Amino acid sequence: MLIESKKSLPPPLYSLEYKTSRTIIDLGDGIRIGDRGIIIIAGPCAVESHDQTLKTAKHVKAAGARILRGGAFKPRTSPYSFQGLGIEGLEILRRVREETGLKIITEAMDCEELGRVAETADIIQIGSRNMQNFSLLKAAGRAGKPVLLKRGASATLEEFLNAAEYILCSGNPDVILCERGIRTFDDHSRNTLDLNAVPVLRERTHLPVMIDPSHGTGRRTSVVPLARAGIAAGADGLIVEVHHKPAQALCDGDQSLHPREFRDLMSQCRLIAQAMGRDL
Amino acid sequence: MLIESKKSLPPPLYSLEYKTSRTIIDLGDGIRIGDRGIIIIAGPCAVESHDQTLKTAKHVKAAGARILRGGAFKPRTSPYSFQGLGIEGLEILRRVREETGLKIITEAMDCEELGRVAETADIIQIGSRNMQNFSLLKAAGRAGKPVLLKRGASATLEEFLNAAEYILCSGNPDVILCERGIRTFDDHSRNTLDLNAVPVLRERTHLPVMIDPSHGTGRRTSVVPLARAGIAAGADGLIVEVHHKPAQALCDGDQSLHPREFRDLMSQCRLIAQAMGRDL
Amino acid sequence: MLIESKKSLPPPLYSLEYKTSRTIIDLGDGIRIGDRGIIIIAGPCAVESHDQTLKTAKHVKAAGARILRGGAFKPRTSPYSFQGLGIEGLEILRRVREETGLKIITEAMDCEELGRVAETADIIQIGSRNMQNFSLLKAAGRAGKPVLLKRGASATLEEFLNAAEYILCSGNPDVILCERGIRTFDDHSRNTLDLNAVPVLRERTHLPVMIDPSHGTGRRTSVVPLARAGIAAGADGLIVEVHHKPAQALCDGDQSLHPREFRDLMSQCRLIAQAMGRDL
Amino acid sequence: MLIESKKSLPPPLYSLEYKTSRTIIDLGDGIRIGDRGIIIIAGPCAVESHDQTLKTAKHVKAAGARILRGGAFKPRTSPYSFQGLGIEGLEILRRVREETGLKIITEAMDCEELGRVAETADIIQIGSRNMQNFSLLKAAGRAGKPVLLKRGASATLEEFLNAAEYILCSGNPDVILCERGIRTFDDHSRNTLDLNAVPVLRERTHLPVMIDPSHGTGRRTSVVPLARAGIAAGADGLIVEVHHKPAQALCDGDQSLHPREFRDLMSQCRLIAQAMGRDL
Repeated sequence: MLIESKKSLPPPLYSLEYKTSRTIIDLGDGIRIGDRGIIIIAGPCAVESHDQTLKTAKHVKAAGARILRGGAFKPRTSPYSFQGLGIEGLEILRRVREETGLKIITEAMDCEELGRVAETADIIQIGSRNMQNFSLLKAAGRAGKPVLLKRGASATLEEFLNAAEYILCSGNPDVILCERGIRTFDDHSRNTLDLNAVPVLRERTHLPVMIDPSHGTGRRTSVVPLARAGIAAGADGLIVEVHHKPAQALCDGDQSLHPREFRDLMSQCRLIAQAMGRDL
Repeated sequence: MLIESKKSLPPPLYSLEYKTSRTIIDLGDGIRIGDRGIIIIAGPCAVESHDQTLKTAKHVKAAGARILRGGAFKPRTSPYSFQGLGIEGLEILRRVREETGLKIITEAMDCEELGRVAETADIIQIGSRNMQNFSLLKAAGRAGKPVLLKRGASATLEEFLNAAEYILCSGNPDVILCERGIRTFDDHSRNTLDLNAVPVLRERTHLPVMIDPSHGTGRRTSVVPLARAGIAAGADGLIVEVHHKPAQALCDGDQSLHPREFRDLMSQCRLIAQAMGRDL
Repeated sequence: MLIESKKSLPPPLYSLEYKTSRTIIDLGDGIRIGDRGIIIIAGPCAVESHDQTLKTAKHVKAAGARILRGGAFKPRTSPYSFQGLGIEGLEILRRVREETGLKIITEAMDCEELGRVAETADIIQIGSRNMQNFSLLKAAGRAGKPVLLKRGASATLEEFLNAAEYILCSGNPDVILCERGIRTFDDHSRNTLDLNAVPVLRERTHLPVMIDPSHGTGRRTSVVPLARAGIAAGADGLIVEVHHKPAQALCDGDQSLHPREFRDLMSQCRLIAQAMGRDL
Repeated sequence: MLIESKKSLPPPLYSLEYKTSRTIIDLGDGIRIGDRGIIIIAGPCAVESHDQTLKTAKHVKAAGARILRGGAFKPRTSPYSFQGLGIEGLEILRRVREETGLKIITEAMDCEELGRVAETADIIQIGSRNMQNFSLLKAAGRAGKPVLLKRGASATLEEFLNAAEYILCSGNPDVILCERGIRTFDDHSRNTLDLNAVPVLRERTHLPVMIDPSHGTGRRTSVVPLARAGIAAGADGLIVEVHHKPAQALCDGDQSLHPREFRDLMSQCRLIAQAMGRDL
């Protein structure tokens, strides 16, 4: 049937009209995204080796992170940049999960990768460049694992929520929305972190909302201030890039925190979380 | 090997350093994109039925268009909007090509669709939302058909050219770059057509450059003025939405030209093309 | 002399190279902007009457604000909108200061107004539309009162700091920088509050930095979350619109807080300030 | 009276509802802005000396320009950049007008300057940074000379037209609107020239519309293509920076045309104007 009519549509699945209680995504081990606790995801931009991943994982776990991030398949602007270790990277993540007990999140860029990522990861990440890759969103809706969906760099919140709707209406209720910076004229930073998205999203959806202060600013010295600000704005958690040796990182070294800086982030964010009446 | 080094890289395949002569894409029947003639692609946003597609095709052919556009697989913001006729739409395009002699361009949104589109279409379109869908770009590099790559709504020209490089370095030299409007604060139009991209691209690449004044403005009454301006800026062609009954179009009706308006576009653009020393 | 040379220039007056200690602006009565205490400026968008101004002033004072804002001269997009009470508005502000003991900040839009404002106000505001009104900046440099300079809606931080430099090098060391939202494609809010400006400015200048969450978002329900976020990002204070009856406000009613909402803001921001090791 | 009501307002003076015939501004000597002829304004960014101004003036006159631009009072981002020759610059412009017969346009940045500029110039320019300097706009409304109003770098067309309304309703019917590039994420050029503003403005106002391809792109090699495109989009004229020795220009040398390049611009634009059924 070819007729489109907005009037007859029921409220979208993401909306508070459809579901009045906030969605909580329970990963086990007491990790409940969208609940009272602030959840911190941390780790390197890319999985570079087992040694690098394990070292960084131990650092972030010791500081209090519960979930490890790390890219096996990397979306890179240039075809000549490091494209990630691929399947080997997934295998490293699987081992490091066993060795540390951390949960794992990693990105999938196409439907084929998504199947493999879903086998390994606890959360599937869909990156900002793929926010409107509708085939991938539909596949994520059938993947049987929670999905962290990053907002596109020039996506309106309407488009962002509709992208989540593609996943939800394909059968997957566990979607985490992640603000990660938008494109503006600003030249002081790689992106402009749009923290006003947090209260607006909380008024429009029951889904959890996280903040990526690393990509959101692209500046190491801005990550901690904007992490604090994100929690103060009402976010349910953070996803932060940490590398045990940032100067040697194969990507995003400029915005990756050293483990010591990440410990500072955790202690400062803990104070803000408490001021917000939340745990960290 | 994990080392990245810009210094040792040869000039990219898109660059005038790599290839000094302008790329001309020959579709047969005297249609040579990037050559002296201005090429006009026209047709409906979506293939809705054989009747609608054929009627519009006859109109645009009579007015001078050589290539028919029409979406079989449609990227839509909402999962509840018309998603295109899919395979049936491709079949309609195939019939209309036979009935009119027009060449066909249509969009593919994932690797599986791309294979089917490549069997049917003369040019494969990659839409702006998928400009950095790197898996799709690599597949397009192996497709054996020319690719029209639309600029992402917030892509820099550096990112745009690197997206083209993914296709080129995967084995496909026939890439057409298409500027289709960027996202800005402007609220008078759906997008801001960035015509300054035309001279900048011509200085940086040998690939043909086209303009989409329909999506680039989103306003029917702006399409003809910006089509003229695009040719005056130096573009090699236009891609324009035309519907035989715009008020009944299933998508993008607000920016689709009526056949009569399209004839006006052709006659006005012909004068500008002549002033530029080009044919239309 | 017509030669321009960046190399021979000494460090700009705004820079930490020129002055390593943070600037503290002492208004008396223990109000020290840029010091350990977070300073809250609050009040109506426009001075509408003595009654309205006094009522709102008493509310914000009771909640803990130390400085009253209120426009006598109003920059309005349309010439047919309420343009402010002008001189009469300044007189009302003078009376309310005597009646409440609050300090006063109000905007000047041209050199003539600036002289009158400087006689009445404790702080002269230069609005975002005038951030590069260089004649006004030079006049503010000679005014003998502190100046709160709002960032232009599309100003880079380089331009913002250079605008401050016009005031500083004209003889006035007391400049407060205020981030108030930038123009982006975002359509969920009137402006996009750029909180990453806070850490970047703190690395580049000794001047105090404040945040305007009212104009920065343009949404009443976003003001409190972004006020908290601003303090968590490291700002020295806030400027907030409060109206004793927002629904009847002559301008900016959509973003003005009711006194009760402002009390909530104060109590929530106090907790964040404490988490930051600051007072409120 | 403090009540604002949109409903009771008559159509604004800029609108086609208020005045259905297009405004033509007659400067004498057959120079009629907004009529069938395309009007070219050209000259240096800044008046640097009598010799430089006269030389450039002779070049642009020989190529067909009818109006000379040149800044005496210069709005500069940094207070340490060349600020213009001021009164001396106005005197040079007066002399060059007598020596060449060219009309003169130059910028005023505050009310005091505006009085002096109005004595000397044939057209008063209000720059983009002052588009919402409402005191200046009101003064321009009483100046008795035509005003060229540049669009602010992040102004919506609604704001732009309302700024024009300030001038019109202060008693001056002779306003020329000038699109000069907006601020976007684009990093390939200094600004993004918004040519879609041309047809939108033509639908909303009877005032003449000009294009500034020099500031609008900030790239010398883009000026000619975008000048052609501006005329093809329907503009009534151009304002172009030309310097007899661009490499020695005290400001904007990167976007200033050499006299030879300006002659090319004129001959190419003449062909486009003819294709548009207009004269140049």
